[in-house]
Parts: sequence; structure tokens; C-alpha cells
Amino acid sequence: MTNGKLILLRHGQSEWNASNQFTGWVDVNLTAQGEAEAKRGGELLVEAGILPDVLYTSLLRRAIRTANIALNSADRHWIPVVRDWRLNERHYGALQGLNKAETKDKYGDDLFMQWRRSYDTPPPELADDAEFSQANDPRYAELETVPRTECLKDVVIRLIPYFEEEILPRAQKGENVLIAAHGNSLRALVKHLDGISDADIAELNIPTGIPLVYEIAEDGSVVNPGGTYLDPEAAAAGAAAVANQGNK
Amino acid sequence: MTNGKLILLRHGQSEWNASNQFTGWVDVNLTAQGEAEAKRGGELLVEAGILPDVLYTSLLRRAIRTANIALNSADRHWIPVVRDWRLNERHYGALQGLNKAETKDKYGDDLFMQWRRSYDTPPPELADDAEFSQANDPRYAELETVPRTECLKDVVIRLIPYFEEEILPRAQKGENVLIAAHGNSLRALVKHLDGISDADIAELNIPTGIPLVYEIAEDGSVVNPGGTYLDPEAAAAGAAAVANQGNK
Repeated sequence: MTNGKLILLRHGQSEWNASNQFTGWVDVNLTAQGEAEAKRGGELLVEAGILPDVLYTSLLRRAIRTANIALNSADRHWIPVVRDWRLNERHYGALQGLNKAETKDKYGDDLFMQWRRSYDTPPPELADDAEFSQANDPRYAELETVPRTECLKDVVIRLIPYFEEEILPRAQKGENVLIAAHGNSLRALVKHLDGISDADIAELNIPTGIPLVYEIAEDGSVVNPGGTYLDPEAAAAGAAAVANQGNK
Repeated sequence: MTNGKLILLRHGQSEWNASNQFTGWVDVNLTAQGEAEAKRGGELLVEAGILPDVLYTSLLRRAIRTANIALNSADRHWIPVVRDWRLNERHYGALQGLNKAETKDKYGDDLFMQWRRSYDTPPPELADDAEFSQANDPRYAELETVPRTECLKDVVIRLIPYFEEEILPRAQKGENVLIAAHGNSLRALVKHLDGISDADIAELNIPTGIPLVYEIAEDGSVVNPGGTYLDPEAAAAGAAAVANQGNK
């Protein structure tokens, strides 16, 4: 049996990536550049000969459309799909909708970086009646409580048990599993796969639109620690751009 | 409990609808007009207040993309998805790829209409090594045999048991089920829902991109026989255009 693969794909550039706003669970669309990144992501899969057998996405448009476009360009639009809120981006609390540079100016570098990258300090809660709240969004109707804010640790707690129960076993059986998700839900996953410490995960940034492939052995272990980006040069440039957010 | 609904949606105009070619299982794309029809289909759902809870599609790009675009425009891109080959278009056998007007000229009106609209006469078989065969298509790898041709009766035989087991129960439980499929797979479904005879089904044509809604009672019966098109005027014009195919 050939080893299965996890193919991590962060959505292409979104409208609020472009305008430098905190997004979280707000359901913004891709930009034209984001659509092009998604298409290129699918082409990279074809070039590498790594074709997904099944797709997992979040419930957010930017990840769903990225997957649709990438799979269409890889001629794999017909594979089974599973959507789950546990792959959603980290909920950014009261920061959702705010401009990153303005937030940094207003609250200072330390608090800004703590909210963005600390493992266990969530931003202030978002009120249920705030413009960018998801408290009444029908797609979360089955959740007991819709989050009002999350730190990365909260994402790990909601995502990893789901990953281990639903997603990893498919790769262990030899399937190639495409996971179309978000900067912070994928950081949570990479933290888990590579055993990165709570402190060191602050330094990890994931670029948009470039597949990151982990080969999974039958026992569930990672064959290639750190994973393999299908376009390493573009991935390095993209990760540096993410690290630089908040600067004008 | 509000009654559930079946929302039948034939894909928007495809490249081979536009060029008047028999398509069947050949996986052609939508045209720009087809994309616009799909978007409009989603808007019609919103205007009618009929929002899908779950999506079923065929394995063919034109139906998958129609559903993606319609759900995106209806803000329901996040609902669960099931894809199944049994919703595929009728396999058109050796006619796949041929121009409809040329086929009519070559074989005459009678044979042409028999292949298009008779209930139980399939077109000649398509050879497994023919250009437009699906014999080696990976999406059908789990089928014992990939069809080489189908008549409408063959579609009824493969589709209706699946429909009754997987799809209808969801509507009986009160869910709105979007079914994104094809001219002939939807004709097979409408034949079943409305109890249309083998002879009379020849006259039924389904327009592209306009949702056709059946309200389903808890016992599985249809509340509104014949269904309800969300844009009846456009639907009548569209059905007439389908009936007229084969003419130059």
C-alpha cells in the first residue's frame, strides 16, 4: 500500500487579507488573486501527482471556494466532501473586522502580538449583537454555544480530537486527504503533527494557496516531519508576508 | 413541522449544450451563460425563501459547478454535500460527442427522436477505447461495469432506488434537499414523482438553471403534483428550447 497523504491548503487571498482586517469567523469572499492562487494550488497537486481522494473543509466561503477551484483545476471536483465547523479559522473575538495596522497602533506591539500569536490568550469577547458576531448564523445552529473568541489553544482543543477521529484514519488507510482551511486552524494542526511547543508555534506562519503535504504511515505517524510544500520558494515568501502583517 | 422540499436543478448551459452536441457522461464545463444561470438559480431560491439544507449532485462538473455557484449566491455554500454517480446524466452511448443536427440529418427524424426520447431504446454502445468513453475514468473505479449506453429506463432503474433510500427520507424529515443534476436524470425523477407513463415522458423537457420544487409530505407523497418552477415563464421558454434541439 502507498502511504496516504494529508494535503493542507490555506485558502487563497481573501478580501480581508487584502484590506489587512482580522477575519476569524466572518464569511468574506476570495479576491481575484485568491481565486488564482486556488487554481495554482490545484495545478501544483497535478504536477506533483498527488491527487486528493476526499476533501475536508471548514464552513467558511473562502476555504470552500478555494477547494472548489483547486479541485476543478486538478480534475478532482467529483471527490466526496465533508464540511465541519471544527476546521474553521480561529474566532478572533472583538478584533473581527478591525484593521490590523490600526489595532497595532491603538493597543501597542505587545498586546497585538499576544492576541495574534500567543498560545493561550484570547482576544476580548465579541458581543452577540455585534455586527460581526456569528451568534445567530444558521450554519452553527447545532452548536451549544457559538464561540465569542478563541485563542490557538481553543482551536487545538476543538480541532485535534475531530482530526484524530475523522480525518487521520483515512490517511492511515492510504487515502490522500485534502484539508482546505485557515491560517490558524492549520497552525493548530501543524503544531500537533510536528509536536511544536506552545512557545515555538508563535513563529510558524502558513502561506495562502500552496499545498503542504504530510505523508502518513499506517500507524498514523508522519513520515516527513515538517511536511513538504509543493512550491517551497513561493511558500517561504508567503510565510514571510504573513509574519509581516500588522505593518503598514 | 414544515414539509420538506425537493429542489430539482438542471445544470446551467454547458459547452456542449451551446454547440448542440450529445454529452451524456462526458465531463464538459459550463459556459459563461451557464454560470449566470446557476447564479440566478441561487437568487430564485433566496427570493422564494426556500433554502437548501443538503445538496446532492452527480459526479459531473457541470452539475457540481452549478450547485457551487447557486449555493454561493444563496449564501448556503456551507451545507453538507453528497455526490453520487446515480444522479449522472443518461449515458448517451455512441452518440456522445456527436452534433445533434448532424445526427438527425444522418439517421433521420425517427431514429433521432427514438434515441433522444424513447423510454427503452438505448443508442448504440460506446466502445471502451473510444475518445469519449468513461471506461477508465477514476471516478467510476468502484462500479462493476461503467455503462456503455443507457436508455431512460436504465436511468430510472439506477436512480430511483437510490432516491428512495437516500434522498426522499431527508425531505420526509422536513429538510430542503437540492438535487443538482441533468436533463435526463431529472426527467427520470419527475417521471417517478408525478407517475408519468413510459409514453408520456417523451414530451417532458426540463429547462436549465431554474429550480423546480416538489413539496413532500411526511409519508413521502408529493403535495404539489407537477412541481412548481420558481420562474414559470423562463421555465416554459427553456423547456421549449430543449424540445427544439436537433433543429439547426
